[in-house]
Amino acid sequence: MKLASLPQGRDGRLIVVSADLAWYADADHIVPTLQGALDDWDRHQPALAALSTELEHEAIPRKRFHEREAAAPLPRAFQWADGSAYVNHVELVRQARGAELPASFWTDPLMYQGGSDDMRGARDPITLADEAWGCDMEAEIVVVTGDVPQGVSREDALKHVRLVGLVNDVSLRNLIPGELSKGFGFVQSKPACHFSPVFVTPDALGDAWADGKLSHPLMVDLNEEPFGRAEAGEEMTFDFGTLIAHLAKTRRVGAGSIIGSGTVSNRDPDGSPGRPVGGGGRGYSCIAEQRMIETIASGEAKTPFLRWGDTVRIEMRDGDGHSIFGAIDHQVVKP
Amino acid sequence: MKLASLPQGRDGRLIVVSADLAWYADADHIVPTLQGALDDWDRHQPALAALSTELEHEAIPRKRFHEREAAAPLPRAFQWADGSAYVNHVELVRQARGAELPASFWTDPLMYQGGSDDMRGARDPITLADEAWGCDMEAEIVVVTGDVPQGVSREDALKHVRLVGLVNDVSLRNLIPGELSKGFGFVQSKPACHFSPVFVTPDALGDAWADGKLSHPLMVDLNEEPFGRAEAGEEMTFDFGTLIAHLAKTRRVGAGSIIGSGTVSNRDPDGSPGRPVGGGGRGYSCIAEQRMIETIASGEAKTPFLRWGDTVRIEMRDGDGHSIFGAIDHQVVKP
Repeated sequence: MKLASLPQGRDGRLIVVSADLAWYADADHIVPTLQGALDDWDRHQPALAALSTELEHEAIPRKRFHEREAAAPLPRAFQWADGSAYVNHVELVRQARGAELPASFWTDPLMYQGGSDDMRGARDPITLADEAWGCDMEAEIVVVTGDVPQGVSREDALKHVRLVGLVNDVSLRNLIPGELSKGFGFVQSKPACHFSPVFVTPDALGDAWADGKLSHPLMVDLNEEPFGRAEAGEEMTFDFGTLIAHLAKTRRVGAGSIIGSGTVSNRDPDGSPGRPVGGGGRGYSCIAEQRMIETIASGEAKTPFLRWGDTVRIEMRDGDGHSIFGAIDHQVVKP
Repeated sequence: MKLASLPQGRDGRLIVVSADLAWYADADHIVPTLQGALDDWDRHQPALAALSTELEHEAIPRKRFHEREAAAPLPRAFQWADGSAYVNHVELVRQARGAELPASFWTDPLMYQGGSDDMRGARDPITLADEAWGCDMEAEIVVVTGDVPQGVSREDALKHVRLVGLVNDVSLRNLIPGELSKGFGFVQSKPACHFSPVFVTPDALGDAWADGKLSHPLMVDLNEEPFGRAEAGEEMTFDFGTLIAHLAKTRRVGAGSIIGSGTVSNRDPDGSPGRPVGGGGRGYSCIAEQRMIETIASGEAKTPFLRWGDTVRIEMRDGDGHSIFGAIDHQVVKP
């Protein structure tokens, strides 16, 4: 089942979207919003699933779905906690900052609490007030949970995954060193995130969803050129069950919480930090990694951070080449 | 005007409470929830204010208000961002961790993004799975905002303050050093917060609310003994306008965002880090400060962190001795 929200009020209006992303059916007669569906999932899921089946069978009136019209599936959420499950990314970004990677980072998940009061849609522009802030995309997988009890195990945590999607966790790289040196995490350096048009239930992902990981390449384009094709199912040191259990160690987690994977990142098969797509590699899901590779290779970073007018596209396709979540596809603009 | 939520569903049911906290009137016919009121404040505020006036004049049916029956005013929120405006506290707690205070901490606000999916009521117990985590209270002032535009000035930010209240920002001290050393802020070391039974509009605070600060002593009792009587209006290095502007530097802030002051903390008049209430001082709003003072005085901390069965009470009274927000008054329990 694929769910999305059309813009309405602060929390959107729930719709069910067809597997091929071409059609939708209104779902707000079942429950007005996606947050409402997640609040009472056991009650609403059967009716939403039935609607989804009827939509696929063309058994009900259907309307054309346009990704560009979708809001973020959760236009605001009660929690956004972002892990750093691809430790290769963490290692590279820290290298770029001149910071060492502690050995514990391979065993103890890194995670930050993000702002969730303003979640933006897949076509909404990235509003950047100052190019000097060093704006970067971070292409990631996210899951949305139901209610998760405090102290949950990794295995049980996976049973609480309701939906899977994509995020562009926009980062302001030049503000990060100053903030992280204060020790309290990100506040100013993480502006609003943008989400894929559609979130999908795990059962609709087939074999690609297994053991708390999603196995497809994450396609990232920068200014309409391929920039990243990392395999999301590979080198994910901490699966989503581990990330949720980490978050829930000392407190329960409320329905509708969004948990991020961190920037998807692969090493090269030869063990090196990876090569650009243009150089035959899988590339990167953020500019900071490419800049680090450039610095290692030539002593200086060449690829600039995002500037007004730049475009970013993030998408994942199944084995048959069909878009799973729709594309995040947007431009950086001056507010 | 004083607003509170009675338990109902996930977001509570809005009520208006009398100034003396003795009576309430149902307000859910105006708007069902406090979040709903904040989402459309300009529309709902006049009707809520009129109801409040009628309640004070006994012009409508009224019911007994019992603080113990109140949920958190916002049982879940879309944002909880907590500053550290009382730099004396930051200095002491860092001293206790053996970390120096950078000079910039006096000019650049420290703030962390907290979890807001599970906000607990004033009488709800602090559920602590493991005493070894070093559970501590942190007594603070909070404000709740309307929609705040990105890049807001300090002065304009204050115009967006809708409500003021108290929080016990429960902290797990023994988990903090490990988390902060990872650089991404608090996740496991900050479990659910507990809020005062009632939130109050700034106009109802009289002269005590001025320049983004609230000037009354914050009364903190530990196991029914006075523990802290710090003046919240003194030594608040960053007022709430500055804190909100800090948060909004790179992104807009959504209605219903809760911004915390950080642990209220005063130095002693002689400039030293303060004395316990029992020693004639104003005491502390968290145990960590008292432990630091003990360590300075005698080489070791004597006051233990919170244990199962301990009680914490946090309250603020006006010049006539009347409780403003009601009391956070709860016990630490094993879940």
